[in-house]
Amino acid sequence: MRVLLAFALVVAVAAAARAEPQIFNIYDFAFEDGSVLPELRVAYETHGKLGAGRDNAILLLHGTSGNRHSFDAMIGPGKTFDTDKNFVITVDAIGGGDSSSPKDGLGQDFPRYTIRDMMAAQHALVTRGLELTTLRAVGGSSMGSFAALEWGIHHPELVRSLILLVPSPRAEANFQLTVDLMTSVIALDPDWQGGRYARNPVEGLRLAGMVYLPWTVSAAYLDRLPAAQLAKEIEDSARAFANWDANSLVLRYAASRAHDVSGPFGGDLGTALAQVTAPTLVLPSASDRLLGVDGARRIRDGVKQASYAEIPSDLGHRAARPAPGTPEGEFIDREIRALLAKIE
Amino acid sequence: MRVLLAFALVVAVAAAARAEPQIFNIYDFAFEDGSVLPELRVAYETHGKLGAGRDNAILLLHGTSGNRHSFDAMIGPGKTFDTDKNFVITVDAIGGGDSSSPKDGLGQDFPRYTIRDMMAAQHALVTRGLELTTLRAVGGSSMGSFAALEWGIHHPELVRSLILLVPSPRAEANFQLTVDLMTSVIALDPDWQGGRYARNPVEGLRLAGMVYLPWTVSAAYLDRLPAAQLAKEIEDSARAFANWDANSLVLRYAASRAHDVSGPFGGDLGTALAQVTAPTLVLPSASDRLLGVDGARRIRDGVKQASYAEIPSDLGHRAARPAPGTPEGEFIDREIRALLAKIE
Repeated sequence: MRVLLAFALVVAVAAAARAEPQIFNIYDFAFEDGSVLPELRVAYETHGKLGAGRDNAILLLHGTSGNRHSFDAMIGPGKTFDTDKNFVITVDAIGGGDSSSPKDGLGQDFPRYTIRDMMAAQHALVTRGLELTTLRAVGGSSMGSFAALEWGIHHPELVRSLILLVPSPRAEANFQLTVDLMTSVIALDPDWQGGRYARNPVEGLRLAGMVYLPWTVSAAYLDRLPAAQLAKEIEDSARAFANWDANSLVLRYAASRAHDVSGPFGGDLGTALAQVTAPTLVLPSASDRLLGVDGARRIRDGVKQASYAEIPSDLGHRAARPAPGTPEGEFIDREIRALLAKIE
Repeated sequence: MRVLLAFALVVAVAAAARAEPQIFNIYDFAFEDGSVLPELRVAYETHGKLGAGRDNAILLLHGTSGNRHSFDAMIGPGKTFDTDKNFVITVDAIGGGDSSSPKDGLGQDFPRYTIRDMMAAQHALVTRGLELTTLRAVGGSSMGSFAALEWGIHHPELVRSLILLVPSPRAEANFQLTVDLMTSVIALDPDWQGGRYARNPVEGLRLAGMVYLPWTVSAAYLDRLPAAQLAKEIEDSARAFANWDANSLVLRYAASRAHDVSGPFGGDLGTALAQVTAPTLVLPSASDRLLGVDGARRIRDGVKQASYAEIPSDLGHRAARPAPGTPEGEFIDREIRALLAKIE
């Protein structure tokens, strides 16, 4: 399959209030599409201590627009991912955060990476970098759940449980169309220049973030927001997108758009999902109109040991990343604790 | 309120296969915002014959992107709007079709017209142009239902029934945001030039049509379409938008965006809806994610003689304009016939 000719583990000095990432370098990383990067940098952080049995690690994977800090509010002593008991690993996916990404200089020439490439890089980190042979859980939200599901399919021997927040086994037409439109909006900005820009196409990125916003929540949520708050959320979404390098953002969403666990199984979704042996918690959001709940239901129906619960919320896709103490946060916390209690 | 200083009825020679519109000119038309057009042209067509009692007229009002032909498939001998019995009037709303619109030359200087302005122009046509004192029904779809509801509120003495397809008593945040985004996409096109363009911003219009598409249907519908058909629908939506003059499209959607029947009632929706005395058929689409069903339910709850039925469909907002013979078309046909049977 893919060849990892060499690798290295570099532990960065972490003294600042917000920890500097640790860096794991993978040399000659071969992507699913056949392209090779001489050096792929994987940025990660760990929280808590690895137990003597080396069996208390939990790997957490963020969403398309996120990074290794996306789960910070749920990680700590006594929290959902309790660092008194667990060794929690958070990773920047390929293409963003402090991991190798198009913005490092390759731009449009950066490999068209996939969800399975992300998983492969994480797998190298976990098995060769951290020298782990088992994970108590792999959890992910949105794009992170896509990668977590690939972990369950391709490394069932390593993974003792899966936590899938707003997941889908593949990107369906509605999501693909949304991504295509955001990408087209960015390309409409004259600064885009076919992706070989001298100046980041900020207006296109801002507008793409605004186009994205209503898909991430429900109509009921938009309608109950005071006008000033809605304006702030629109601006926040615009700014979050504009803070990305355009090529990095476009390739990141392209990876999510291409997500399909059935690919290596000739398009047979049932066969792909049947590979998963780990107890799998499936937590879609009842009001999700970006991905919907159909994909989550397919996972429920195709994975042997799946438990399924819809987050009751009008936050839509965003329900998967709630503030602690909210009803959504408590629902998710309760479900995850119940799963982890069974995984010793 | 508004002063119609003069008016004229011009019957155009209609000999072609597709009838030329009839034209009704309103002089010194005063818009709700205080601006005045010296001459407002209202294009319309009639189907069937006005009865001796002059009481068999049905007025049909199209959606935001439509025109007087939007209901053509439902109009004719034996059809839903049976021309053996009814005198059916279809009108191009202000700002599009062959009625006065920004593309005639005023561009950005065309008045910011409203749904109530449309109703006022239609009212002038019906009462002064056609000299009718009663309408068997006013029916409308989407924006047309907005105007039909205004008819029921402001002219209860004229209207014997209302037919509201995918209606809402006011534009809510989700729809407003969608309109804002489409408008912003058009403005991102360098050809837009703040609306004072020398060349229609076709790329922006095309992309706005694509941004609009997924809102008009359901995710389930997009997912069940074969890829080639989905590509065709995206292209059709892009082309339909690009066929509009940009200012005409932007002002048309701005009118729908500003829709709120409670405006003249100090924002009191209950008081506004209580003005409606006519039996009112409310037909939202169960899968509508552009307007949702909440607005339709508010109409049901606020109008004294409302009957409410959700069109069972995955066509979303588009379910209101189905092909004849489809389940949606038959559902709508049955409901409208049942209403009209009671309105003699």
